[in-house]
Amino acid sequence: MSYLLISGTDISNQIYGEIRERIAKLKEKGIIPGLAVVMVGDDPASQVYVKSKERKCKELGIRSETIYISDNITEEQLLAKIKYLNSDPMIHGYLIQLPLPDHMDTDRIINAIDPKKDVDCFHPENVGRMLVGDHIFYPATPGGVRQMLLRSGIDTEGKHIVVVGRSNIVGKPMAALMIQKGMDATVTVVHSKSKDVSEFTRQADILVVAVGKPNFIKADMIKEGAVIIDVGTNRIEDPTSPKGTRLVGDVDFEDVKDKVSAISPVPGGVGPMTICTLMDNVVRAAELSIESGSK
Amino acid sequence: MSYLLISGTDISNQIYGEIRERIAKLKEKGIIPGLAVVMVGDDPASQVYVKSKERKCKELGIRSETIYISDNITEEQLLAKIKYLNSDPMIHGYLIQLPLPDHMDTDRIINAIDPKKDVDCFHPENVGRMLVGDHIFYPATPGGVRQMLLRSGIDTEGKHIVVVGRSNIVGKPMAALMIQKGMDATVTVVHSKSKDVSEFTRQADILVVAVGKPNFIKADMIKEGAVIIDVGTNRIEDPTSPKGTRLVGDVDFEDVKDKVSAISPVPGGVGPMTICTLMDNVVRAAELSIESGSK
Repeated sequence: MSYLLISGTDISNQIYGEIRERIAKLKEKGIIPGLAVVMVGDDPASQVYVKSKERKCKELGIRSETIYISDNITEEQLLAKIKYLNSDPMIHGYLIQLPLPDHMDTDRIINAIDPKKDVDCFHPENVGRMLVGDHIFYPATPGGVRQMLLRSGIDTEGKHIVVVGRSNIVGKPMAALMIQKGMDATVTVVHSKSKDVSEFTRQADILVVAVGKPNFIKADMIKEGAVIIDVGTNRIEDPTSPKGTRLVGDVDFEDVKDKVSAISPVPGGVGPMTICTLMDNVVRAAELSIESGSK
Repeated sequence: MSYLLISGTDISNQIYGEIRERIAKLKEKGIIPGLAVVMVGDDPASQVYVKSKERKCKELGIRSETIYISDNITEEQLLAKIKYLNSDPMIHGYLIQLPLPDHMDTDRIINAIDPKKDVDCFHPENVGRMLVGDHIFYPATPGGVRQMLLRSGIDTEGKHIVVVGRSNIVGKPMAALMIQKGMDATVTVVHSKSKDVSEFTRQADILVVAVGKPNFIKADMIKEGAVIIDVGTNRIEDPTSPKGTRLVGDVDFEDVKDKVSAISPVPGGVGPMTICTLMDNVVRAAELSIESGSK
């Protein structure tokens, strides 16, 4: 059986083309979209993500500002910084790179972000707006998966979408997006406490996997002709690779590929979509700033 | 097969006993919980609900205030009233009785409520907090169903809960509550766009139905031994009744009762639980006002 490879690289490039046009329109009105990234401490993985966000902003013509703060800042000082960012007219959207140092209350910090500038879509007001179907922004990964389905021509109406994983960053918002009008899927969420994960994954017309277990999904766990979106990015040892490691998803690609109708690879699948959703959100925040300014 | 009748009347009375104790403790600290209900226009159904809220407040010793406003009020005037309620220290929680007149933007009105006083749990911030597992309040109906399951000793961990209906008031928040840690259910949401509702309802260990269709769920749509929570309240014609009508649920009780292990009746099931959750939220808002006041 031949399958459609759902390339996040290609789809994100298509979206970036549209984003460039929107940025050009904003510039005609004298607005350059501005993103700030607040990085507390020096978590090495976070630094990699921050650099790639800076690079993408530069490519697209988004003004970016990265605020490096040492991890001995107090929570109150960080809240003061957030207050400033909420009022800075040059910054249309910003995010606090997670994880934060242990001495900080992450919920309290996130809750202080102005929802209109919350381009990570982590503020509970934005999470709630998404669940009730009145969103401002989409969260990065679920928003990216949504675009992958839409732009691959995969019809979701009445389809059974099974989401494996119930994290606040992927599983829960993913399910929330898929039950909305317009997507109209029947949605099941399975997780670590589910009795028999396979019982549900085998029913999926569309399977979205976000569990962080390398090659967890095998051919006998899926239905013939299923669409598979693999959110996992796991680094495993590989003596044949120059680095000694390689990235694999939560789905055993080689094992399932002859059984699926479409599948996203790792790398090059969901990965490139997350930063793409973020860029889309920054431009949207800038666009919305005009509307609210003209009120 | 004999079944457990899940009585919302009994369970709510048990909870009211606990609420009375909490109110007594608050009174020792000089606090009388206060609820305001804002009623715009004179929708007859709304008037019935408002009266029953007033009555329950009086019974429990909650201070209640009902604000009747004629429906020619402007949106700005209503927003001004909300601003006042947000700052009124005697009012710990309040709600705007829906539906609002057509000339008003309901989302804008709801978004203006201080989330700490939003005892209906309709503000998107509270909806989002519920989805991420950091709730202040539970929404009335889903919170009531949660209590019915917990207090009937029905274990939800690893069970397959199928929610029929995806409204913002019942279906979506119901699903959100059941996937949280602590409840730990595998959750499926089916709705009007689902291809074959029975395919899913027949899998349910616990079936929650909120579709507004009289006697929609029949015995052949459920699994032997299922637990059934019937959220529907439909008034149908009944020539044998003195009123000429009677209330029935979304589940055909007589048809399914010999197949289920537990079921909530209509009336006397979910109905009494919704106002109970509201009263619980008002007392919780009053309790939280002490904590935030002492900060």
